Amino acid sequence: MNPRGRFITFEGGEAAGKSTQIARLARRLRDRGHTVLELREPGGTPLGEKIRHLLKHDPDGRGMAPETELLLMNASRAELVRARILPALEAGQTVLCDRFFDSTVAYQGHGRGLNLAAVQAVIDLAVGGLRPDRTLWLEVAPEIARARLAGRRAAQGTSEPSDRFDEEQEAFFARVARGFQDSFKAEPRRWRRVDAGGSLEAVEEAAWAAVADLFS
Amino acid sequence: MNPRGRFITFEGGEAAGKSTQIARLARRLRDRGHTVLELREPGGTPLGEKIRHLLKHDPDGRGMAPETELLLMNASRAELVRARILPALEAGQTVLCDRFFDSTVAYQGHGRGLNLAAVQAVIDLAVGGLRPDRTLWLEVAPEIARARLAGRRAAQGTSEPSDRFDEEQEAFFARVARGFQDSFKAEPRRWRRVDAGGSLEAVEEAAWAAVADLFS
Repeated sequence: MNPRGRFITFEGGEAAGKSTQIARLARRLRDRGHTVLELREPGGTPLGEKIRHLLKHDPDGRGMAPETELLLMNASRAELVRARILPALEAGQTVLCDRFFDSTVAYQGHGRGLNLAAVQAVIDLAVGGLRPDRTLWLEVAPEIARARLAGRRAAQGTSEPSDRFDEEQEAFFARVARGFQDSFKAEPRRWRRVDAGGSLEAVEEAAWAAVADLFS
Repeated sequence: MNPRGRFITFEGGEAAGKSTQIARLARRLRDRGHTVLELREPGGTPLGEKIRHLLKHDPDGRGMAPETELLLMNASRAELVRARILPALEAGQTVLCDRFFDSTVAYQGHGRGLNLAAVQAVIDLAVGGLRPDRTLWLEVAPEIARARLAGRRAAQGTSEPSDRFDEEQEAFFARVARGFQDSFKAEPRRWRRVDAGGSLEAVEEAAWAAVADLFS
């Protein structure tokens, strides 16, 4: 039997470069002989991708209540954990996930203002005790994130169209950032902060340095 | 300002006649001058009807985890409560709902075997303190329900096609019935048991007798 695989999550605001860095870390790990599964939240299963559409793009989702948003996010997560993450970890694979429950604490808890204990109870039910072995917080200054988002929009079609979250105001994103900060401080063994404002190569090296001990 | 309206929920197994009796009670109340809103769960909002489809009919929902099912049910409910039920009650309207949180306790709790305290925590977040003024448990013997379901299927097209729940086994429905029984015993002031095995007219009279005090 394989030893249990490693579970690494990437957190941060919009345009922090999470998906790019996940692809780079995955390539590096595959070069070293690891089997790597790349996932994203919400989504990552056929059902979860339909829930993602309701959350981000469906016109009927406009104006949904924060509680609805929290429960849909965690419905997608409950499915992802059981259908994809746990089987992969049990097979000894490395799982890299673009967002996980820390995003829910930051966005639906701190951002939307839902009661944090209630948010945690829903998360606990969705993940059933699963926790990441390491969480990388890709942190980027707001003005850099704004410039990257503007560049993406100009490029159109290279990524998803803007969604319900992109349309939030700066005060919302400031609360989200404080949420990540709180989680980072509360679990220093699990969390690593990565400066995501540099070149792609520099961020890749910093991300690798933040997880290399898990593979030594 | 209008006094707050009454909120009445209908519970019971498949083919207990809930939707028929809701229509009859609604007509009777309208004849007496009440404004009545008829709703169903899951669903009742544009977003909720899409969630209903994922829960009951979408092929990608086949084999979803019980936790996913619980969270999707309550996402639909969170939206229904805030977008439809509370505004109607505040406007003094009567709201009749085909299933509400007691179905979640019975189906996802007792039926699927999820931890009842965790189920209750998710429900509490979804409904935010709202409780029905009265809950009618339409109880029908399993052999009568089976005969009615067979009749519906033969008639095709007069109602929704069979769904993930219809396909469950008898042991599941026995656990669900025990769940309703437990809830009935725990809150005798809210719950009324209605024998739903008789004629449509007899059940209508019994249902009316079970709620008339709310409108006197």
